[in-house]
Amino acid sequence: MVSVVGTQRQVEQTGTESTVQDVAAYMQQVGQQARQASARLRSATTAEKNSALHAIADALLASEGSLLAANEKDLSAGRANGLSDALLDRLTLTPDGIKGMVEGLRQVATLQDPVGQIDNMEYLPSGIQRGQMRVPLGVVGIIYESRPNVTIDATALCLKSGNAAILRGGKEAINSNRALALAVQAGLEVAGLPADAVQIIKTTDRAAVGALITMPEYVDVIVPRGGKGLIERIASDARVPVIKHLDGVCHVYVDAAADAAKAVAIAFNAKTRRYGVCNAMETLLVHAEATEVLTTLAPMFKEKGVELRGCERTRALLPDCLPATPEDWTTEYLAPVLAVRIVSDADEAIAHINHYGSQHTDAIVTENFTLARRFLTEVDSSSVMVNASTAFADGAEYGLGAEIGISTDKIHARGPVGLVGLTSQKYVVFGDGHTRA
Amino acid sequence: MVSVVGTQRQVEQTGTESTVQDVAAYMQQVGQQARQASARLRSATTAEKNSALHAIADALLASEGSLLAANEKDLSAGRANGLSDALLDRLTLTPDGIKGMVEGLRQVATLQDPVGQIDNMEYLPSGIQRGQMRVPLGVVGIIYESRPNVTIDATALCLKSGNAAILRGGKEAINSNRALALAVQAGLEVAGLPADAVQIIKTTDRAAVGALITMPEYVDVIVPRGGKGLIERIASDARVPVIKHLDGVCHVYVDAAADAAKAVAIAFNAKTRRYGVCNAMETLLVHAEATEVLTTLAPMFKEKGVELRGCERTRALLPDCLPATPEDWTTEYLAPVLAVRIVSDADEAIAHINHYGSQHTDAIVTENFTLARRFLTEVDSSSVMVNASTAFADGAEYGLGAEIGISTDKIHARGPVGLVGLTSQKYVVFGDGHTRA
Repeated sequence: MVSVVGTQRQVEQTGTESTVQDVAAYMQQVGQQARQASARLRSATTAEKNSALHAIADALLASEGSLLAANEKDLSAGRANGLSDALLDRLTLTPDGIKGMVEGLRQVATLQDPVGQIDNMEYLPSGIQRGQMRVPLGVVGIIYESRPNVTIDATALCLKSGNAAILRGGKEAINSNRALALAVQAGLEVAGLPADAVQIIKTTDRAAVGALITMPEYVDVIVPRGGKGLIERIASDARVPVIKHLDGVCHVYVDAAADAAKAVAIAFNAKTRRYGVCNAMETLLVHAEATEVLTTLAPMFKEKGVELRGCERTRALLPDCLPATPEDWTTEYLAPVLAVRIVSDADEAIAHINHYGSQHTDAIVTENFTLARRFLTEVDSSSVMVNASTAFADGAEYGLGAEIGISTDKIHARGPVGLVGLTSQKYVVFGDGHTRA
Repeated sequence: MVSVVGTQRQVEQTGTESTVQDVAAYMQQVGQQARQASARLRSATTAEKNSALHAIADALLASEGSLLAANEKDLSAGRANGLSDALLDRLTLTPDGIKGMVEGLRQVATLQDPVGQIDNMEYLPSGIQRGQMRVPLGVVGIIYESRPNVTIDATALCLKSGNAAILRGGKEAINSNRALALAVQAGLEVAGLPADAVQIIKTTDRAAVGALITMPEYVDVIVPRGGKGLIERIASDARVPVIKHLDGVCHVYVDAAADAAKAVAIAFNAKTRRYGVCNAMETLLVHAEATEVLTTLAPMFKEKGVELRGCERTRALLPDCLPATPEDWTTEYLAPVLAVRIVSDADEAIAHINHYGSQHTDAIVTENFTLARRFLTEVDSSSVMVNASTAFADGAEYGLGAEIGISTDKIHARGPVGLVGLTSQKYVVFGDGHTRA
């Protein structure tokens, strides 16, 4: 694995792209400023934070011209460097895209503020009252790729949850992100919050990432967003906790006791709603007594252009079906391809999911109450569903309002991570002069 | 920092102490067995887990003779190796100590089982029902020093929370821990749970620790218990999340609006109840208008043998007081020594705590409601108290029943960590054939 941890290096760049000479010193300063800003944010009122979100939205609208101009610089450079059309598409800012960011900011302003909420407040035998107060994590570092809207999404969520943010976007978007940073800082200043509450790293030097993930004194958690390779590398090199999202090899298991119409609808939706998303079904497991579901689905998938790769029993049933290799059971296709396996019972289905799956999202279709309860307990995934499409595994669908990502970790936050996932709880104790015996 | 990560090494030990020849292969096997056992534990009922706890307790009572004999071996070896009296004391097992372990196991059996609890179950606009189910983390690795009772405490908490445990105690206690392991495994078998649900590492080779903390495929979280140096080293080398406890530099701030009698009682209790514990007060901050509290406390501390080290203003008030150096503000004495500083206002106190403290436990003594609220918000520690002694920061006092440690992290668990801290939450979704638009 290539290390992204850099030592003190000089940034060798020309023109306006970077003015950072000493990356290590620069990142130290960014970290210190974030830590300082986080102390102010910790006690910022909900009104102050919401006012900052609206002020940033206003500043974005006011600077549409300069945002589009900066983005055009990135696009020209991208074209010159031979970026793929898909990458250029993700990089592109449009007036509608800016409107989307503005709406996102105003929507986060409407969400409930988790900070300060006290749970479990109760009197204990000693006479003290003890509770748990929700508090910001402190400083959140976000590492992402070239989509500039992530800059504003992350800003909104970190700010509302009372965290200072250090944002490191892809180098292809550096000019767009710098222009967005100006609007963010203008908004923060209007609201009377420190401009360093959200800092966007100004250098494209990779050593900045190495520094960001190894400063536990300044950074409380890292949220990497991007491909599996990037995330694994960051998790491996980090000296700071990482909330990470690896792959989504999601399953739908159609049980013998499934309602066939529900099974067909769910499996078709889970595969074809969108192919490139982590909550799409990648493997369909079908009980040997429910194969009519499979024969109904096969022509529907064919019409939609979904390629099937099946086990021997599946191929006996569907002669057109390609053979599945062992690798298919662990592959996140993110494409119109589906692995299919016929199983003899629910035990085999659950064992398959826990062995080959990625613990992201898995669903059972069954009318059998006892089996549904068992599936919920025994399948060890961040979302486990009964009679619903895996496509629902999403922050907005779960009512979180917005999400910073979907965690496939078990520690701290699991599944879609919203505002609450960016907070911690501290104990609060009230007494009347109480001492411990 | 010395790395504890070892490569494949041969264990060079003689006699019965170790039969492990290839540490890397042995640890792989331990990891695989733990992962396998955790799948069974995930769906173990509360009754099964409680029955195992009682069966282990019974097995401990039945094997008192062999436990004491094994412990005597460790003690002889310890004496021969020149262990300090304090270490030998911690290493010693007595019939009363065994009774304490037995009571601990039976008490954990009485605690509420957090696993399976579903929170936030609600209907969402799409018609699905979404909730969060509490689930075990999976496999927990505990690294500790020479106290054999930790072996049983950790066993009880991991088992009740549905986690498989891999326990690595200090090398001085290897014979005691092996004898305890026999009782634990006998109990697990009686209850019909896998014997590998709790594994005690059989080798004293340090490479075993290096392997344990770098197997994310088998281990979900590491809880190190011991000195700050050990914990920092583990946190630095781990490739697995670590729930850690660094130092406790705890403060009591006596405000101008404090009730003097409460302030005296709280400060005296927080310092003198026990010196060697992490929740003991190490620095007393006193408002310049509340110095009568200090002049009342000074002779009490003197009589108790507590040495005071004060700022200039403190020394002007208490001529006997030694001068505090900057180092005193960040020192966890764990001894009858107290740093004292007179501050001009609450701002100075809060700034001192957030700057020099260790974010463990800090208390204010005040009758001022507004200031109490401010202190709760602005002091960024795992426990923040009003008019109560820092000595209350403890799992038992907080009603957790038992604790695996006190976390000074912000991620996942903060403050005393009980059964809930050893669990995660997964999303569960119920539908009626729902698909996403």
